[in-house]
This record gives sequence, structure tokens and C-alpha cells, in this order.
Amino acid sequence: MDHDDTLLNGAATLQASLEPLGNALRGRGWRLATAESCTGGLIAALCTSVAGSSDWFDRGFVTYSNAAKSAQLGVPAPLIEAHGAVSQPVAEAMALGALAHSEAQLALAVTGIAGPGGAVPGKPVGTVWLAWACRQPEGTPEAHSRLLTLPGDRTAVRSATVAAALQAAQQLLQALSRP
Amino acid sequence: MDHDDTLLNGAATLQASLEPLGNALRGRGWRLATAESCTGGLIAALCTSVAGSSDWFDRGFVTYSNAAKSAQLGVPAPLIEAHGAVSQPVAEAMALGALAHSEAQLALAVTGIAGPGGAVPGKPVGTVWLAWACRQPEGTPEAHSRLLTLPGDRTAVRSATVAAALQAAQQLLQALSRP
Repeated sequence: MDHDDTLLNGAATLQASLEPLGNALRGRGWRLATAESCTGGLIAALCTSVAGSSDWFDRGFVTYSNAAKSAQLGVPAPLIEAHGAVSQPVAEAMALGALAHSEAQLALAVTGIAGPGGAVPGKPVGTVWLAWACRQPEGTPEAHSRLLTLPGDRTAVRSATVAAALQAAQQLLQALSRP
Repeated sequence: MDHDDTLLNGAATLQASLEPLGNALRGRGWRLATAESCTGGLIAALCTSVAGSSDWFDRGFVTYSNAAKSAQLGVPAPLIEAHGAVSQPVAEAMALGALAHSEAQLALAVTGIAGPGGAVPGKPVGTVWLAWACRQPEGTPEAHSRLLTLPGDRTAVRSATVAAALQAAQQLLQALSRP
């Protein structure tokens, strides 16, 4: 694995992947919002590392504490209590909340256990839920999600989460642009 | 200058500075909130890169667009129109807004022109306002701020802003702990 720094592995490769993502968003007149727990702002920091990103990046929510997930994104506290902060329902509620609390058309959300602490039975270090949602021209948006099981240390888990989130956004935009 | 990656210069050095900051916050039972424009989540991403940061990091607001500054932090739109997003009043309103919209006791806010575009007369690339505010046991919190004029490219300006913000927080906590 490419360790080119101590904050984000493979930053240069990930920055290169932002150009097609930014172009795809710009082409639709769309903007992105991010809701991040385990990555703590890394997706937003990467997106805004390239000049011109204000065209397609709207805002980010770094909802590190559970209280922040509820206050900033409207994730119901009972949902967090019932399923845990690292769960499919919470990830999807974060994505929908980011859409509802922004002017973006596409939202990405991640919640996971980056380690070294935080593991619970059934949720080892490296367990990450990734969710995304798009604003719909009509009706309420639907969230979609994917479970990631990532190897490595805290930096590796966070970096792989960033990469997976950007890839999911890119794939979604490609699928939407197909005739 | 230490270029150890393409997202944040001197990440390892900055990470090392988080230990005293985290200890100082933990020692007071305080938590930090961040409100970031030009750094786009980089301060939050750095803080949460170290294990155990959930003890002292509450949440972050990546208010990249002006609409986000108003919606997420309550910065009045007329204030932004009157002074520009990169200004002392807006930076201080962002810090106070982060305090008001979080459970943190200390808030850091940054708004600046990272470049290469965005310069306006009197505000060249590298112009950054850094503001901070503490919750007061009694009365309303006051914000303080500092103008930074930073050299270099987008990565250099963002990295130096992150460093200055962490240093301001550290100095404030040191001053508060003096008898």
C-alpha cells in the first residue's frame, strides 16, 4: 500500500480521482455534501484540496460524537441507541440528513471503527458503513449503503474509506449518465 | 518546508502537536469544535487522525459555501455581504456559531483564500482570518481573531492555517491554565 503521508494514504492518487468526480458533478450542476464520522473530515478535506472545488462541493458535517449526528444531521438518538453509531440505518440516516441539511444534490456518509479501540462483538476494527443519497426531482430521496471490512491501522482504514466513498460517488454518477 | 504529502505539509509534526492539545482539553474536561472554510475539514481530519480524539473532539463544520456558513453556523448573510466571507467579522461569527451549535467549550474557525483563484483587491491569496471562542461559565462568549498572511501554494496555505489554528488553541489553553 502506498504510504505517502501520515494523514491519508495515496493522497496524490485520490486527488487525481477528484477530477472526473468534479467534472461529473459540474456537468449535472450538482454539488456534494459529506457526513463523516470515522474519517473526521478527510473526505471534505480531500475534495477541497483541489482548486475549483467550490463549484461542486457544498459543505461537510464532521459528526464525530453521537450528539453531533443527531444535532447536525437529524439522526434520531433512538436509532443510534438501537443499532449503534456504526450501522446501516445510522449511515443511511446520515446521508439523508446531509441532503436535508444542505443545498447539495448528492450526499456521502461514512461511519465506522477506525481503531485501534472501539471494536465491539460483531464489529471489529475496520467495520465501516458507507451510504449515499441523491436529491430526487420528485418524491423523497432514498439512501443506499455498503458494508466495508477494511484491513490495516487507523490511517489505512480511514484512507480506504475515503477511496471507497469517492468511488461510490463516481459509479453512481456514471450510472445516472447512462442513456 | 516539509512536504511529506500532497494533502497536508508536515502532517507528522502537526500530529505530534495534537498530544499536548488533547491533554490540555482533556484536563479541563473540554471538547473542541471546528468551523472551516478554506481548510475544508483538514483541521478536523487531523484532530481525528489520532486515537482517543473522541475524548476531546466534538464535531466539525465544513462551511465551504456562504449558504453553509449561514445555515450551519448562523452567520448572518448580510454580514457576509458587507464584509466578504474572508473577513474578521465572519471569522468571529463562525467561531461563535460553532460554539452555539455544538457541545464544545472551545471553537476554532478559519476562513481564507487558499488560491490559486479567489484573490480580490486587498485580499491576496494567503489571506486567512483565524478566530477562536470559549464557552464562558457566565455571560456570552467573546471571539478573538488574528489575520494571517501566508506564502505558498494552496497546500502550503492550508497547511500553515491548520498549524496556526492548533497553535492558537494550545496558547489559549496554556494562558487559561496559568495561576
